Amino acid sequence: MTILKSTLISREPLEPQEAKWKRLVKTNYIDPNGVKRDWESAERQTRPSDSQVDGVGIVAFLNKESGTELLLEKQYRPPIDQVVIELPAGLIDPGETIEQTAVRELKEETGYIGVADQTSGIMYNDPGFCNTNFNMVYLQVDMSLPENQNPKPDLEDNEFITCFTVPVAHLHAELQKLESEGYAIDARVGSIAAGIEISKKLRI
Amino acid sequence: MTILKSTLISREPLEPQEAKWKRLVKTNYIDPNGVKRDWESAERQTRPSDSQVDGVGIVAFLNKESGTELLLEKQYRPPIDQVVIELPAGLIDPGETIEQTAVRELKEETGYIGVADQTSGIMYNDPGFCNTNFNMVYLQVDMSLPENQNPKPDLEDNEFITCFTVPVAHLHAELQKLESEGYAIDARVGSIAAGIEISKKLRI
Repeated sequence: MTILKSTLISREPLEPQEAKWKRLVKTNYIDPNGVKRDWESAERQTRPSDSQVDGVGIVAFLNKESGTELLLEKQYRPPIDQVVIELPAGLIDPGETIEQTAVRELKEETGYIGVADQTSGIMYNDPGFCNTNFNMVYLQVDMSLPENQNPKPDLEDNEFITCFTVPVAHLHAELQKLESEGYAIDARVGSIAAGIEISKKLRI
Repeated sequence: MTILKSTLISREPLEPQEAKWKRLVKTNYIDPNGVKRDWESAERQTRPSDSQVDGVGIVAFLNKESGTELLLEKQYRPPIDQVVIELPAGLIDPGETIEQTAVRELKEETGYIGVADQTSGIMYNDPGFCNTNFNMVYLQVDMSLPENQNPKPDLEDNEFITCFTVPVAHLHAELQKLESEGYAIDARVGSIAAGIEISKKLRI
């Protein structure tokens, strides 16, 4: 079992000339009434120049005899000093398609080999605050394949991730349990769980 | 019909001493192997000191004879220069409970009076990038009440929002249509729609 929790030392203001990965920007615009306004927001510096999106969020289904399970991750996130329950995800490398990024990141972060069968439109994480965005890619993981019997992640030095699976039907209850144990919940995962519960309740 | 689209003039770097709403921070931490590392991220400057969260996302159901509809908004967002399909949402004022914020913001942004019947745990929008977070509050809007017959929003000078409703069962298809018409899709709304579709497909 990988130990995931890091130890926060300090947090300090970041000067723009020191920042390598993120930046603050001011957008000047004219509102529908003709009034000139400005708006503060944050961006990644890493989006490839030929890409409209930063990265992918991966909905990976493990198809087992007992039912379909969703592959999730536990990852320490310094911005909130908590271990977060998240979808596998990653940034697009220059020249990659969205689906290539998803298959590569799933392999690197979890060891599983998946096949892309659906890609969403672009989704914006918090568009009043930042421009960060992603495509949600659905990957099917065939558990009968030899390469998915004993998956081995290939993590970077600064990545501390463990993956686990949850029966899709129990996602909401499982997230509540994990939150009560001290994990933070990513909004993409939490909102998928909300959608499943809404669907159940309204019998859609 | 309110005209929503603003006109982008320019985008420029934002210096920390000029920023009133957002900031960049550097987090120093020790990873599980004992290695000292740092991480860049962005934050709001507006979170009340007595609050763990920035704001609320509002899942407002309009209960009609024809079925349950979800209340959504179209709002111009300068960080991405697009009109975005979003949940009603807002930042917490000092001293407010989460549910008070949700009821107040729904009234201000859409004119509808809702009653809170469920509140999620805290969800993090993009925890590798920023600390922004929210509670998802479910509001029931009783359409038989006189005050919900002719709702009147009370928007700020710099808010250009129109609201509309979608039958919950058709959310995913409706978002695809709106995206094809040029609207951007917020990840919280898009992920709820994804959850509904997953639930349908797996017959949960």
